[in-house]
Amino acid sequence: MKKTLKFSGFNIFIFITFCLQAQADIKPIAIVLHGGAGQIAREQMTDSTKKAYSIKMEEAITIGYAVLKEGGSSLDAVEKTIRILEDSPLFNAGKGAVYTADGTIELDASIMCGQTLKAGAVAGVSRIKNPISAARKVMTHTEHVMLIGRGAESFAHTQGIEMVDEEYFFDEKRWQQYLNKKEKGQLFPNEENEKFGTVGVVALDIKGNLAAGTSTGGMNFKKYGRVGDSPIIGAGTYADNRYAAISATGHGEFFIRNVVAYDIIALMAYKKWTLKKAAQYVINDKLKKQGAEGGIIALDKKGNIVMCFNTSAMFRAYINAKGELKTEIF
Amino acid sequence: MKKTLKFSGFNIFIFITFCLQAQADIKPIAIVLHGGAGQIAREQMTDSTKKAYSIKMEEAITIGYAVLKEGGSSLDAVEKTIRILEDSPLFNAGKGAVYTADGTIELDASIMCGQTLKAGAVAGVSRIKNPISAARKVMTHTEHVMLIGRGAESFAHTQGIEMVDEEYFFDEKRWQQYLNKKEKGQLFPNEENEKFGTVGVVALDIKGNLAAGTSTGGMNFKKYGRVGDSPIIGAGTYADNRYAAISATGHGEFFIRNVVAYDIIALMAYKKWTLKKAAQYVINDKLKKQGAEGGIIALDKKGNIVMCFNTSAMFRAYINAKGELKTEIF
Repeated sequence: MKKTLKFSGFNIFIFITFCLQAQADIKPIAIVLHGGAGQIAREQMTDSTKKAYSIKMEEAITIGYAVLKEGGSSLDAVEKTIRILEDSPLFNAGKGAVYTADGTIELDASIMCGQTLKAGAVAGVSRIKNPISAARKVMTHTEHVMLIGRGAESFAHTQGIEMVDEEYFFDEKRWQQYLNKKEKGQLFPNEENEKFGTVGVVALDIKGNLAAGTSTGGMNFKKYGRVGDSPIIGAGTYADNRYAAISATGHGEFFIRNVVAYDIIALMAYKKWTLKKAAQYVINDKLKKQGAEGGIIALDKKGNIVMCFNTSAMFRAYINAKGELKTEIF
Repeated sequence: MKKTLKFSGFNIFIFITFCLQAQADIKPIAIVLHGGAGQIAREQMTDSTKKAYSIKMEEAITIGYAVLKEGGSSLDAVEKTIRILEDSPLFNAGKGAVYTADGTIELDASIMCGQTLKAGAVAGVSRIKNPISAARKVMTHTEHVMLIGRGAESFAHTQGIEMVDEEYFFDEKRWQQYLNKKEKGQLFPNEENEKFGTVGVVALDIKGNLAAGTSTGGMNFKKYGRVGDSPIIGAGTYADNRYAAISATGHGEFFIRNVVAYDIIALMAYKKWTLKKAAQYVINDKLKKQGAEGGIIALDKKGNIVMCFNTSAMFRAYINAKGELKTEIF
């Protein structure tokens, strides 16, 4: 009797081991996006606005997920998803970029590959339709990480990146907001209900490669060629297959000083914290104590999703390892 | 007898405690500079060249140290010392900046205050005599961290920063090197005996405040508005009173991807490593394995100096807590 029992126990052990192994062999794919974080009162957003954001985020995340589902790379998924967000006037990136104090457009973007630690970024560009694609070309077609201004535009042009003129970025509503701000002589975008609006995507592909990308029109009414954290590797964007892929959004200056994206990675690497614990500490403790608003989206190598923000809202969407899609704002 | 012995032991304990306390009360001041790292064969550098570098580094470090000695701030010491190096044609920063592929000058600089974690940076500027002073104005006179290109120049101009025209940067020898390179169609500065030449300073003042700054002309023959690690907070420059002040020099792209300056801080903060251990790991292990050349200078809150490089040479000088001055190249 005792012997039979032992034998059964062994069988159960083998069975559990087999199940765990089988589960481990299913390589997770997942994708997360953000469309900016900020202080937005729930009641002040109309249902139709909420719906417009949800539909666009769902469209974008679905396209990125399809890339992953077909066995495509996380870099492709990140780039394609961000392009959808850049092409929408809803977000402060690409087509929807806010105006500088001079009434011009200055875009920043960066992308990073978790497998190779290669990265690319452009900053202060005005004629590139999709800065994320230019950033990717910097990563794949140069020895460099960061190109800025006219130089970055010249490079993008040589790579066949779609160039546009100023008119492409014109939006009547934003232009009126700009004129309003100008009249008031307002310098900083600290108005209530003003979201930051940067976009970012992180993805994990079937090969276990993580990637992260971020794109922005920068701070509303910015002056003097101000650049925030979005094109800064380590601040706004970071990816390392061993730990996580991260894209940030928020008050960029604080995100640069605190090296937010890499700080989360460092806590995972050096303190063995989980992605969730590391992100919560950096966003809800460290940054909050400094009065710094914003958030991050992140994915670890197992496909665990973290979306963490210290504001009342962060536009976000994901499709997780189980294939479940969700879009959220508050 | 036994009682007397016990009493003596206690006296000795009190005396040692007193001495340690007295020593702890002497607040250390110290300053370190680098003038770039690279592969330079010792025998290929003439004695007169060595002497010229040593004299200029000694002049610069002495001026910075005098600021600290008079009770001035580490930020003042860093800025003043870097200005001397920027004004010298010997280093690839300010006056001595290398040419871009277009035969123009594009300068980058950053500075960070270890007490407040405030930081300032400029990138891609062509008309500012001392980019480190412009970076400091960004830190102290704006809400921002990074300004680029013409915008950064306009801001600097409003702050009374000295502006110069192209001619100021002209140097016959460097121009000939540029024409040579152009003729050969050489794109990347991987020639033997080519030093990187960025300059950087870290300082600790009597109040225990650390500061770090870095200034560069960037990569020789660079194209398309390329920006390296020097103006990137976290990569080329970082300072935090609790840990250390760091300035890096080397192959900037690797320094950005590895977030070098902040990585050293993170190892100190999260793994409780000493500055020396953290710096050696990042420069001589992590970067070396990637084939990334360069080095860092650093100071911790106790005034411990670390100068670490994986190349054959790094131009460097320091005045330590004992007031000892040393300049070295190899």
